[in-house]
Amino acid sequence: MLYNVNGDLVAADDAAVSVSDRGFQYGDAAFETMRAYGGQVFAWAAHFKRLRSTCNALGIDHGLSESKLRGRVHGTLAANDLADAYVRLTVSRGVQPGKLSPSDDTDPTVVVVTESLPRGGVDGTRVWDDPATVRTVDVERVRDAALPATAKTHNYLNGILARIDAGDADEAIMLDARGRVTEGATSNVFFVDDGVLHTPSLDLDVLPGVTRWAVLELADTIGIPIEEGHYTPRDLRHADELFLTNTTWEVRPVATYDHATYDTCKVGARLARAVAEEVEERHY
Amino acid sequence: MLYNVNGDLVAADDAAVSVSDRGFQYGDAAFETMRAYGGQVFAWAAHFKRLRSTCNALGIDHGLSESKLRGRVHGTLAANDLADAYVRLTVSRGVQPGKLSPSDDTDPTVVVVTESLPRGGVDGTRVWDDPATVRTVDVERVRDAALPATAKTHNYLNGILARIDAGDADEAIMLDARGRVTEGATSNVFFVDDGVLHTPSLDLDVLPGVTRWAVLELADTIGIPIEEGHYTPRDLRHADELFLTNTTWEVRPVATYDHATYDTCKVGARLARAVAEEVEERHY
Repeated sequence: MLYNVNGDLVAADDAAVSVSDRGFQYGDAAFETMRAYGGQVFAWAAHFKRLRSTCNALGIDHGLSESKLRGRVHGTLAANDLADAYVRLTVSRGVQPGKLSPSDDTDPTVVVVTESLPRGGVDGTRVWDDPATVRTVDVERVRDAALPATAKTHNYLNGILARIDAGDADEAIMLDARGRVTEGATSNVFFVDDGVLHTPSLDLDVLPGVTRWAVLELADTIGIPIEEGHYTPRDLRHADELFLTNTTWEVRPVATYDHATYDTCKVGARLARAVAEEVEERHY
Repeated sequence: MLYNVNGDLVAADDAAVSVSDRGFQYGDAAFETMRAYGGQVFAWAAHFKRLRSTCNALGIDHGLSESKLRGRVHGTLAANDLADAYVRLTVSRGVQPGKLSPSDDTDPTVVVVTESLPRGGVDGTRVWDDPATVRTVDVERVRDAALPATAKTHNYLNGILARIDAGDADEAIMLDARGRVTEGATSNVFFVDDGVLHTPSLDLDVLPGVTRWAVLELADTIGIPIEEGHYTPRDLRHADELFLTNTTWEVRPVATYDHATYDTCKVGARLARAVAEEVEERHY
């Protein structure tokens, strides 16, 4: 596999960043996890928009145009002859003189990592093995006042500690200080109750997931009633069905959440199919 | 300059970690910033203890003994012929299969970075140029419930955002959600009122700084009354003097904090001298 580091294609084993890179020293970097189908990135515009918003929140002025970044991503896919793939695009603040306060003179480190990842698709195989087991954890979601919730950064220990806390469960649900459900370590959470699709609203400390957005759009198109709001673990446990969304899993049904089990994931399956159809329509 | 990467001495420009290292991808790493005087690390035992506590909090089982880590640090100092120096020791969780949840099978990445840094010393030159300008920032200190406050990790964006918020000030003071003073982005804060030395107590979201600890020990020896407690910016603004501590600055007086100015830093200067004497006594 070839990765792209600052515009150069290098063998994955040789792809490296300086130990003085602020992305390594401080997690001072923005990233996006994307899917490519048929060699084209799904929802590139939404991912680029969020990357820009993360860079703005961190004050990283990388100076690279959208088309340049897009070119590196697609160039890396092409160089590896990848059609259906996982893509990780990172923009770090790079190496700067040895101070915590960032300098305005930024020479960013831009990394594109790709791996082959078959699409679920209408008839394909799914990325996830089974419906997820999910657990509420004690690790509290970092507050927006400390780190902007809309920023997707290399400061990911909050989610890692949540996953450790979740033990052998597939995903950890983090609450805020007031006990409200925010999100999973790498996913947004949805539940269905009496035919209404619910998900935590973005005024909470929730990363605005691209798949979350796509699923809400599709639900609206299909005519599924939607309510974004504030929910507790109890609301989720008493729901008819529960599912998770992220770029890699797309839509993943939940089998168990804490002590609750769910027999069905009808609305989730309908939305999973709608996502797959959207992919088939837009990508080869 | 030579750095040490996983036991190998390499030229600083070639010292690199994989783009797949979790220290880069997620800031999934522990570190310590230390000072060497006369080729020996100051307060190694305290730094090693905190590193162990950080690794425990993150569940990083690096499998390296204290003497091995100490050997790498001192070996790197010796290879560069450094006596008075800055040292950064990092232990990251290393490269693991592409999942957020850590695996138990850890092959850590251990990096030692050193730079020459003259001691302030009894007659020496100080590391800092002038007494610090300090500002309270809106960025809230990450809560212990989200990321253990005692852990010193590569998730340092909270402090970076605080520094950006502080503009041209030297240091940013972060408050918790209840408006209580916690710490600076890279320092602990002390103030003196009516001869009593005050600093935020460790039940707050405060990193237990090694210099904080050394200064409290020395104050106790000298006979300066100490009170650790909960304080607001108002308490600091109305204090007789204010100073900051960290490994690089040792003790740094504060000239201004928000709109308050301080004419004196007598107790701070006394403690700075005590630290310098301690260094002279213990190190060549």
